[in-house]
Amino acid sequence: MSVYRSHTCGELTAAAAGNEVRLSGWVHRVRDHGGVLFIDLRDHYGITQVIADSDSPAFAALERLRAETVIRIDGKVKLRDPSLVNPRLPTGEVEVYATAMEVLGPAEDLPLPVFGDQEYPEETRLAYRFLDLRRDSLHNNIMLRSRVIKWLRDAMWDAGFTEFQTPIITASSPEGARDFLVPSRLHPGKFYALPQAPQQFKQLIMVAGFDRYFQIAPCFRDEDPRADRSPTDFYQLDVEMSFVEQEDVFNAVQPVIQGLFETFGGGRRVDSDWPRIPYAEAMLKYGSDKPDLRNPIEMQVVSEHFRGSGFGIFAKLLEQDGTEVRAIPAPGGGSRKFADRMNAYAQQQGLPGMGYIFWRKADDGSTEAAGPIAKALGHERTEAIREQLGLGEGDAVFFLGGRPETFEAVAGRARNEIGRELGLIDENQFKFAWIVDFPMYEKGEDGKIDFSHNPFSMPQGGLDALDGDPLEVKGYQYDLACNGYELISGAIRNHRPEIMFRAFELAGYGRDEVERRFGGMVKAFRYGAPPHGGCAAGIDRIVMLLADEVNIREVIMFPMNQRAEDLMMGAPSEPANEQLRELRLRVLPRE
Amino acid sequence: MSVYRSHTCGELTAAAAGNEVRLSGWVHRVRDHGGVLFIDLRDHYGITQVIADSDSPAFAALERLRAETVIRIDGKVKLRDPSLVNPRLPTGEVEVYATAMEVLGPAEDLPLPVFGDQEYPEETRLAYRFLDLRRDSLHNNIMLRSRVIKWLRDAMWDAGFTEFQTPIITASSPEGARDFLVPSRLHPGKFYALPQAPQQFKQLIMVAGFDRYFQIAPCFRDEDPRADRSPTDFYQLDVEMSFVEQEDVFNAVQPVIQGLFETFGGGRRVDSDWPRIPYAEAMLKYGSDKPDLRNPIEMQVVSEHFRGSGFGIFAKLLEQDGTEVRAIPAPGGGSRKFADRMNAYAQQQGLPGMGYIFWRKADDGSTEAAGPIAKALGHERTEAIREQLGLGEGDAVFFLGGRPETFEAVAGRARNEIGRELGLIDENQFKFAWIVDFPMYEKGEDGKIDFSHNPFSMPQGGLDALDGDPLEVKGYQYDLACNGYELISGAIRNHRPEIMFRAFELAGYGRDEVERRFGGMVKAFRYGAPPHGGCAAGIDRIVMLLADEVNIREVIMFPMNQRAEDLMMGAPSEPANEQLRELRLRVLPRE
Repeated sequence: MSVYRSHTCGELTAAAAGNEVRLSGWVHRVRDHGGVLFIDLRDHYGITQVIADSDSPAFAALERLRAETVIRIDGKVKLRDPSLVNPRLPTGEVEVYATAMEVLGPAEDLPLPVFGDQEYPEETRLAYRFLDLRRDSLHNNIMLRSRVIKWLRDAMWDAGFTEFQTPIITASSPEGARDFLVPSRLHPGKFYALPQAPQQFKQLIMVAGFDRYFQIAPCFRDEDPRADRSPTDFYQLDVEMSFVEQEDVFNAVQPVIQGLFETFGGGRRVDSDWPRIPYAEAMLKYGSDKPDLRNPIEMQVVSEHFRGSGFGIFAKLLEQDGTEVRAIPAPGGGSRKFADRMNAYAQQQGLPGMGYIFWRKADDGSTEAAGPIAKALGHERTEAIREQLGLGEGDAVFFLGGRPETFEAVAGRARNEIGRELGLIDENQFKFAWIVDFPMYEKGEDGKIDFSHNPFSMPQGGLDALDGDPLEVKGYQYDLACNGYELISGAIRNHRPEIMFRAFELAGYGRDEVERRFGGMVKAFRYGAPPHGGCAAGIDRIVMLLADEVNIREVIMFPMNQRAEDLMMGAPSEPANEQLRELRLRVLPRE
Repeated sequence: MSVYRSHTCGELTAAAAGNEVRLSGWVHRVRDHGGVLFIDLRDHYGITQVIADSDSPAFAALERLRAETVIRIDGKVKLRDPSLVNPRLPTGEVEVYATAMEVLGPAEDLPLPVFGDQEYPEETRLAYRFLDLRRDSLHNNIMLRSRVIKWLRDAMWDAGFTEFQTPIITASSPEGARDFLVPSRLHPGKFYALPQAPQQFKQLIMVAGFDRYFQIAPCFRDEDPRADRSPTDFYQLDVEMSFVEQEDVFNAVQPVIQGLFETFGGGRRVDSDWPRIPYAEAMLKYGSDKPDLRNPIEMQVVSEHFRGSGFGIFAKLLEQDGTEVRAIPAPGGGSRKFADRMNAYAQQQGLPGMGYIFWRKADDGSTEAAGPIAKALGHERTEAIREQLGLGEGDAVFFLGGRPETFEAVAGRARNEIGRELGLIDENQFKFAWIVDFPMYEKGEDGKIDFSHNPFSMPQGGLDALDGDPLEVKGYQYDLACNGYELISGAIRNHRPEIMFRAFELAGYGRDEVERRFGGMVKAFRYGAPPHGGCAAGIDRIVMLLADEVNIREVIMFPMNQRAEDLMMGAPSEPANEQLRELRLRVLPRE
């Protein structure tokens, strides 16, 4: 027998009754029932009840145990009295009568108890992460994360992909965030960068002739603090394929992601119909490029009903170029109280408010439209709106007007809010959609044209498309939306240097700058590059969805806090002078 | 049909004859046989022969193709003439008669051809890694590496281990090399470090109650250049287990490593008997703590035969304390020529030389001992040596004398050299041994006691053992040797703070310094730490052994050169001033 255990704490059942056993684990809880001690002994695998009475040679020592002490127990397995069987525990039919005990790891008084559900400040939890991780929910989340990653790896291999590791200490690979830099000792004054993503490397792997790549890849971004992301690094399922079009990528990825959610979704329904929704349509219907499709509300353009109408604000607004009025239908929201609450919500979100109409039963039993807009529009126009949206008595509609870019995002949030408030969202499912046809370029506030997403994407229409209005160019660029989150982002890449130079030129980057910043990749494209594309899925985000957590630190073993500090290990910290000297660096005083 | 391919280039067999197909790939080689073009079209999966004659509409375009151009071919599968079948290719029974061709990725003149076996300077190969990776041997090595890692992961999961990711941007975790530092932007003047190994984290995972951990873990060490290691990072199979002794770790690890070598060893024999060899015995018998046990030579102490003998050099030497004479038997090495060559080898290695005796057939048919030492020792002592070592006619023995630490390493290398020269090494096998009982401490050249290996190991005998002579203390520290390499290193950890403080004290580290440097871990040990231990296996080294490569860059997709530069991506490089300003850093001028 091992000096530490014959069984784990999750293993003993009625079949073991009468056996002499040895267990090791943590003292989860001690109860003293008048001369009989009940000790819940816990390890990774489960909890076993250990008992001792004053006849046991171990009694005196057991009586003095602090919670979370690590002990070894020798004892005999006994069936519990039927009235004391605990059906929620796999070991609930038995208990171990302790005859000997040894302390393997003493415990001081705990800053954070493991037993019980009490909430503790996050800073305490992070400083004593090793205790917090012993608690059930965090332990389960971390195990879920590991199983999810294992499952993804297996699924990718089964689908003919091979995992390759790409460099971590490397050159800058800009993805729109700041790089973490690593000073070089052998080349003082020069710096490596940690990769924001393996983007260039995975493309080089395709150019190198490997056909289907994936990697559970650590990505490093020096981000400003935000609750739902790590300030330093995150993991993505990184994928790239050669000789593919956009639909080939979708067909490769859907079975993997769908299977994952079916396996780990805890029984929540997983929709297998993944529509392709053009970006422009998503923004119009859902006010978001990562719509929550569990919410059945779809917005519509209703400008025609307001043009030249008696509702002066919108009528006047529509005289300006590029303006629209959009409607958010709210089935079941037909009360002044609800309409006012949503109007207040829009004001909180920084808009002047949301006009509305709602339909109620009139005193004469007929359906009547209520609200100031209905009055101003008149019956005919109000009816036309009701018919277009398919609404009726007990329903409402909200309106937002202006240039869509000024209100689209708020409209999207209002849609979510309305769906939530009216209970229209079936929480018990995962609904996916590919958002496609993203614009390649956008106009910044300074009027400058820049890439709206990944500059390495292939423009639809190739070189010819780049001769027209840049804002009209769409890319082979796509996202996977799920329940209101962006789970995956990807693209078919631009593997033709001449198209790449032209694409960058439109965004104001000269040939020299492209060569300087992406020289390795551009060089590679000159020696036989296959058409290729891929995507990356956020692992932390997926695990959060599966575990139903909103804080990313609940699904990472040893996370940083939001100020990018590791409170347990004490990072970051002051370097030794000798280290700075070797790197030929000096820290400047605060300005 | 996909716009790019109906089949891969490794897929078509005689069964497809007559079918219209579409292939995409790289132009591996074009041969023009008088109006008939033969094109080897290559992708990740294989090579298919494409042909075209002047009747083909694609002929003119195909004729102009440069090697490594990426093309798409439409054509018809035909059986090759039986005399032209290539049995070495899976596709060797067929060829595709091309009717249409499209260039998908043009290629300029190549700095490094893909077809052919010509050697190129490593700097060229690294700068054009994407071309070098298209070559067969490197492509196969990288695929082997991926399969090895996949296999290891599966084997570890099957053995009940769970993979957890530990932080990459973290605090310093000293393992005897230099840290790579990462300056913090949110905390200017403070630095993170990249982990030299996940040592502290994996121990914390055990303290957190997870039972069996593994990770394919990137490790970062700012190393000075050496041919067989990466100057920046490497991967290890990192393992840790709770509630285990040394033998439990061995029993968990052996099936995994043995199975790996059986699966990927290319048919080389894998020894299943893994002896435990104490460090002192390994140094004596093999002159190394990572002995090549394929070599049957075992050294022995032969001091007694020289003490007070007529061979004055050794006789005198043995009068000093701590000296020994050791013998390296060389079965089959019994000639003056061989003996002289080995003597010269020892001189190259910095020793004054190696004395020897060899046994030959005398003119009268008897066996006679030859060489100056035999003469000086006399018949009786020479015979005693011969008998002790079990040698006879045609054999030789070499001697080294002095304090063992002055010649042990050379003796080990001489043992290798003798084994190699005499053909005693069966190259067709892998032989493993656990080297155990490493000393905890060693005396430096300055006479100071320091840890000889991992300071976190549990000393054998616990606290009591630390009250005697530190140089006598052994640790529960072990290595796995295979064919002359250290594949694995590990230990049972010191999980008791009071023993840890005492162990560090012996090496001259005060309580404060231990708290400062390893505070996170020491703190954790105060709240119920289980006994635990583990090990780490060098993945790059394992793949090198399996692939039979001696250069680590042959088993890494995108390696640094020996000056720690990425010649393809241009790393390290000068940072932007803005980046340094945000980090509040200044690069000092060269002194």
